[in-house]
Amino acid sequence: MSSIRNIFNSRSDKDGNFFREIKNIIGFKPGTISIYEMAFTHRSTNIKDSKGDILNYERLEFLGDAILGAVIAAHLFKKVPSGNEGYLTKMRSKVVSREHLNELGRDLDLIRFIRSSIPIESFGQNIHGNIFEALVGAIYLDKGFKSCEKFIQKRVIKPYVDIEKLEGKIISYKSNLIEWCQKNKKKFDYLVYDDTGNDTVKHFAVKLKIEDKVVAKARATSKKKAEERASKRAYYKLQRKIEKEDSASN
Amino acid sequence: MSSIRNIFNSRSDKDGNFFREIKNIIGFKPGTISIYEMAFTHRSTNIKDSKGDILNYERLEFLGDAILGAVIAAHLFKKVPSGNEGYLTKMRSKVVSREHLNELGRDLDLIRFIRSSIPIESFGQNIHGNIFEALVGAIYLDKGFKSCEKFIQKRVIKPYVDIEKLEGKIISYKSNLIEWCQKNKKKFDYLVYDDTGNDTVKHFAVKLKIEDKVVAKARATSKKKAEERASKRAYYKLQRKIEKEDSASN
Repeated sequence: MSSIRNIFNSRSDKDGNFFREIKNIIGFKPGTISIYEMAFTHRSTNIKDSKGDILNYERLEFLGDAILGAVIAAHLFKKVPSGNEGYLTKMRSKVVSREHLNELGRDLDLIRFIRSSIPIESFGQNIHGNIFEALVGAIYLDKGFKSCEKFIQKRVIKPYVDIEKLEGKIISYKSNLIEWCQKNKKKFDYLVYDDTGNDTVKHFAVKLKIEDKVVAKARATSKKKAEERASKRAYYKLQRKIEKEDSASN
Repeated sequence: MSSIRNIFNSRSDKDGNFFREIKNIIGFKPGTISIYEMAFTHRSTNIKDSKGDILNYERLEFLGDAILGAVIAAHLFKKVPSGNEGYLTKMRSKVVSREHLNELGRDLDLIRFIRSSIPIESFGQNIHGNIFEALVGAIYLDKGFKSCEKFIQKRVIKPYVDIEKLEGKIISYKSNLIEWCQKNKKKFDYLVYDDTGNDTVKHFAVKLKIEDKVVAKARATSKKKAEERASKRAYYKLQRKIEKEDSASN
């Protein structure tokens, strides 16, 4: 495996530090780094181990898909005690939809780590979700279920899994918030500011001001997402207030 | 939940010990017994908790299905390093097939714990598999992923998951063994003997003798299964010998 590691060091990270970048993404130190290298190795490389077994991300993708499904199932089970089997199944399929997994992989810009013998441009959009799943599989193999759960909590559940939004009750927190501000004659403003942070991926930072007071801040990989995320935070912060005023006005 | 527990004690166990029976089946002490009671409660009972949330096995079945899928995926991933994604997917679907899950539930006679307002006879065959999955979900909720893995190792993987058989390379270990004995002019005999053990479920015990020497013993819930299991054990015991003789005779 040492030859692969060298390739990774030179390919994926100009500073020669694949290890550090993975650590940033997963939130803890990788144990066996070669497992993560496998998660970004495309079949076109035709790399095999000493026993002749194929080393690419496809097997890890299978594993990651199963682990992700279990973690999300357990999360929804605990989070929504009133949801029946059909509800839980539907909610989970929304979270682990191809489209959503692609978004997750794209947001983390995982494709920069890909090692392939064919041009990256020739891959379809599903490559993003596939290597995201492979990364989950790699974490499971390297660190076990608990660490996988932590990673999924941080990178999937916290930023993306919002029961009310999944249920379609809230389409956009931003429009929700704007509506409330207009109804209640509050001045609001979304301000983009510089905050590159420690992340290796480019981020947009947004402050949401209501009546010239900052009520929420958020960072994301696009301005639109950062605004939505800040609106969501403001929504939960103001939720009681909103509910109270709503019930008073009805 | 205490009223449910009482019902369980009187219904499912003539000795009033649901706890002990579950402990026998799962292989360790249950923590919160009410979770296991939920795993055997049919929706027809219409039982709800103090918050009005429905208590029956259907939610646990959803959870158990996901956990079982993850554990089997991880097992196959590690067990068959040469298998690609397609192979692993196919093998897993064989292990967690409806038919197979029903067999697992039936072998443990889980249906004796069922609490239902409609007659048990009116359930279809899938009830066995459904409550088996619910039991896996209950173990996960009560004891976590590691304990679930142990249970699945003991009750699914060890007695049932046989890669060669799943691949269809070996249809029956018994016929395999008989063929080998006839070819090699060895006398063989399957003997059923009494061995109720500590299990609550009725078991058949079989000794396999070759040339009047006991080469393997096995217990199972049917004579046929016990013979197959004993043959499998003998097969692995004799495998080197068989392979050696096979290659010498070809």
